[in-house]
Amino acid sequence: MRSGGASAAAAAMAECPRTKRKREEDEADAAEPRDGVASAAPAAAAFPLAELSVRRVLRESARDKAIFLHGQVTGPSGESTDAVVILEKTPFQEEKIPELLRKHARLELQMRNDIYSTYHLYPPPELSEIKTTVVYPATEKHLRKYLRQEVHLVRETWEDYKNITLPFIQSQSFSLQWVYNILEKKAEADRIIHENPDPCDGFVLVPDFKWNQSQLDDLYLIALVHRRDVKSLRDLTGEHLPLLRNILREGQEAVAERFGVPGSRLRVYLHYQPSYYHLHVHFTALGYEAAGSAAERAHLLADVLDNLALDSRYYQRRALTCALRADEPLLAKFREAGRL
Amino acid sequence: MRSGGASAAAAAMAECPRTKRKREEDEADAAEPRDGVASAAPAAAAFPLAELSVRRVLRESARDKAIFLHGQVTGPSGESTDAVVILEKTPFQEEKIPELLRKHARLELQMRNDIYSTYHLYPPPELSEIKTTVVYPATEKHLRKYLRQEVHLVRETWEDYKNITLPFIQSQSFSLQWVYNILEKKAEADRIIHENPDPCDGFVLVPDFKWNQSQLDDLYLIALVHRRDVKSLRDLTGEHLPLLRNILREGQEAVAERFGVPGSRLRVYLHYQPSYYHLHVHFTALGYEAAGSAAERAHLLADVLDNLALDSRYYQRRALTCALRADEPLLAKFREAGRL
Repeated sequence: MRSGGASAAAAAMAECPRTKRKREEDEADAAEPRDGVASAAPAAAAFPLAELSVRRVLRESARDKAIFLHGQVTGPSGESTDAVVILEKTPFQEEKIPELLRKHARLELQMRNDIYSTYHLYPPPELSEIKTTVVYPATEKHLRKYLRQEVHLVRETWEDYKNITLPFIQSQSFSLQWVYNILEKKAEADRIIHENPDPCDGFVLVPDFKWNQSQLDDLYLIALVHRRDVKSLRDLTGEHLPLLRNILREGQEAVAERFGVPGSRLRVYLHYQPSYYHLHVHFTALGYEAAGSAAERAHLLADVLDNLALDSRYYQRRALTCALRADEPLLAKFREAGRL
Repeated sequence: MRSGGASAAAAAMAECPRTKRKREEDEADAAEPRDGVASAAPAAAAFPLAELSVRRVLRESARDKAIFLHGQVTGPSGESTDAVVILEKTPFQEEKIPELLRKHARLELQMRNDIYSTYHLYPPPELSEIKTTVVYPATEKHLRKYLRQEVHLVRETWEDYKNITLPFIQSQSFSLQWVYNILEKKAEADRIIHENPDPCDGFVLVPDFKWNQSQLDDLYLIALVHRRDVKSLRDLTGEHLPLLRNILREGQEAVAERFGVPGSRLRVYLHYQPSYYHLHVHFTALGYEAAGSAAERAHLLADVLDNLALDSRYYQRRALTCALRADEPLLAKFREAGRL
């Protein structure tokens, strides 16, 4: 997932003659790096893990077997420096299982009932790696980034969209330059899986940055539409049916051909709210529980098509749920408006 | 989640006078135990884990750090006996973190870039427990149960529902006796969190069996409607709006009062297809990624209410996506009908 970034030049592509809205984003100024790209700060010192004193747990996931820690390291002159330390247990490696079963340090029976029994198994160190990520020195911004943020559901009516969400989107300097770079082949051109070049009803399909393409389990692609006047699900009407049908059909065909994954094994959906306001569609492996695939945020493209076919103005009539993190400015806007 | 079970006696409760359909389920015969209840087979022998020879991986989850193995144990006379062994790494325990950081057996730097660095950390055995579950001896049925089943999406039109799904549901002996037991206070009466006793527009809210109620992270409750003539989302019309509004409002209020979790932090949804055909609504903590909360199966109750308010026959007009496991008989029915 990627979000903002600076937009300098306006694009000079063939435009869909049906384009109705101006691109507010082109005036944007604020630059924001892509996720995971380090800034150009001075190089960090070696990290003394054993000397870390844990201040608090920022976040933990019992399901993922991961924990995010805020710690401090005390220097020789007594000053403390913040660090973020992320510990995550690693997946089992099939080829090491026989060794694991034989070389366990200890095996304790916990419970037995009929044919079922459970044990505590304690493996040797070399078979129980923990992936450890350190951010050091960490700033307040890093701590905030990793701190668990409660998510709240807001039910956005069409009036809320017009009065709260749309003005908020327009006031933000969301740059879409990285999207335009892809559409204009100025970046990632070699990664394009499929393109329909039609300026109105065409799109480009690229692998999402989260997918390393080395296994199909977490297959993740994004379809970016060529036209630049559709911000999100909220803008869609019956007019967009040909575009959306192209994305569903051609996207499924391209994924089947390139990766051998049939359409019945793909989750094809839009986010509302999206993380950037240029219409895009997610393609993920059905077995992959990608973040953002839950019902409070994901809208199946097949459902969107049916809704628009039944009622061209469906997405201008219906309230939509938005899942907003406690620190998101849009949530504050809903609160200010007394809608929460 | 619970599904079938034998139904002997028809219930003798006040019935909603608007009830239209007969209860086909009452004639059911086949008994099926609840999930997780062991059968009365003879007690198993002690399990020689170190002698297990791994035949294949039935399933694995890189995200959950779990692996399901089909193994065999060879007896003294050379005969092999099947076993299922499930290994799952355990969540971090906050109180043991300082020990983990100090007592690691080895720490290897993997990568350093600016303030970011990653390490391989190898903890001592006592800090890296693996939860081990053994089913031994295992039958073919156990192996099938744990084998990963591919899920396929089917787009079910209203005609498909009438011609394929409904006849299939009616042909199955899905018993709902356990539901009726709850509604009639013959079972789990002490677990009821809230009840609206109205026979048409009332319901009972109980904790789901998957939730042990010891932490709110994975809060999970189920609202079971009193009326017995609504099988699923497909049956809902504008007539059911008062019932559905009661469930949403009273359910949210009851959860807020009893557990302190506000409505904006709850995912309230229906499954389609459901696992049993008596209308019920899921209440889960928003932060809990419960199985079945993804867009291909979960329908937010708030969306259902809006759709029915816009169009009383919405769920009899719209195609709906069904996520069906490869071994589900309903998928075979769709295939036979040439719909897959």
